[in-house]
Amino acid sequence: MKLFQAIEQRRAIKHFDRTAKITEADFTRMMTAVLLSPTSYNIQHWRFIRITDTNTRLKIKDAAWGQQQVEDASEVIILCADTQAWSDHPERYWSNADQHTQAVLLPMLDAFYTDKPQIQRDEAMRSCGMAAQTLMLSAKALGYDTCPMIGFDSQAVADIIKLPKGHVISMMITIGKASKAASQRGGQLPLTEVLMDNSY
Amino acid sequence: MKLFQAIEQRRAIKHFDRTAKITEADFTRMMTAVLLSPTSYNIQHWRFIRITDTNTRLKIKDAAWGQQQVEDASEVIILCADTQAWSDHPERYWSNADQHTQAVLLPMLDAFYTDKPQIQRDEAMRSCGMAAQTLMLSAKALGYDTCPMIGFDSQAVADIIKLPKGHVISMMITIGKASKAASQRGGQLPLTEVLMDNSY
Repeated sequence: MKLFQAIEQRRAIKHFDRTAKITEADFTRMMTAVLLSPTSYNIQHWRFIRITDTNTRLKIKDAAWGQQQVEDASEVIILCADTQAWSDHPERYWSNADQHTQAVLLPMLDAFYTDKPQIQRDEAMRSCGMAAQTLMLSAKALGYDTCPMIGFDSQAVADIIKLPKGHVISMMITIGKASKAASQRGGQLPLTEVLMDNSY
Repeated sequence: MKLFQAIEQRRAIKHFDRTAKITEADFTRMMTAVLLSPTSYNIQHWRFIRITDTNTRLKIKDAAWGQQQVEDASEVIILCADTQAWSDHPERYWSNADQHTQAVLLPMLDAFYTDKPQIQRDEAMRSCGMAAQTLMLSAKALGYDTCPMIGFDSQAVADIIKLPKGHVISMMITIGKASKAASQRGGQLPLTEVLMDNSY
């Protein structure tokens, strides 16, 4: 599918066909594409929890206040991030770079993140956002639908997936085949309201 | 361009052709696509500052520690968000929905965001991330290159663009034509390291 078609056709779907499956090849294709989305300094701090266990799925549905798409979609992915990935053997993020580049990057990374929890968290949300859009567009291009979700009890989901210390949950995405199309778009702001030249 | 090609070919470019221009039609096409990226409750809280003034551009380059791509790229966009958009006449975000849906959404929105500054900020970073990836892929599909940037003094840029209270800067994106290709990818983590089933 062409990029602009995927962007235009992607909509948040609430009603999924319970019998639909995503082939393993398609799932791998989507996730492989997701791994090409950018992260600062290439730290690749996103982590993806794929909920395959039915019981776990139902617990997550409860934590999402009973939203039916969590039960009915073919796949449920929790997008998390390791906010400390920058300090976890960072040389592997640039293993293809030369020694000089590695020697320059290492202290930069340290200076940028050390003792800056808000920057670490911002980065987690931002990187997961870029990965999320890559996942949703990839799903669309392969003929699937998605629903991006933040409407859930984050602490309850953290407990269910045993989220380690230093990690955060950014959002959840359900993927599958729509059984009911989305309503028309809600009410789009004009470009002139959100795009400004040079300053506010 | 096909979606997966755009994902695979998008790379962070540091060297731009100073003489290249983006046509206004292409710029509008990209930004129109960006406005189709999702936001929770459709609050569309992203704001995009397009730096067209040469002097402002040079000030931003200074705030970005002299990074040359800020001067050389055809366009520089600062991605910001209004963290209070959820309380700014939210009914317009669902103007196409029926009265009943609007009546349900309004108190949900209030309960979700009121007095939750971290959730408001997370949301800003996440939505800007989704918009950023849409912008970079759209640029690629139209034959342009991009560089996503967080390496700048955020307060200095906020001062330059007169960022209002309640708004945050998420990141910067330069867009143009590469004059030098990106190096090979840094060192990709395998899918098995970042994708887990059911829990950590």
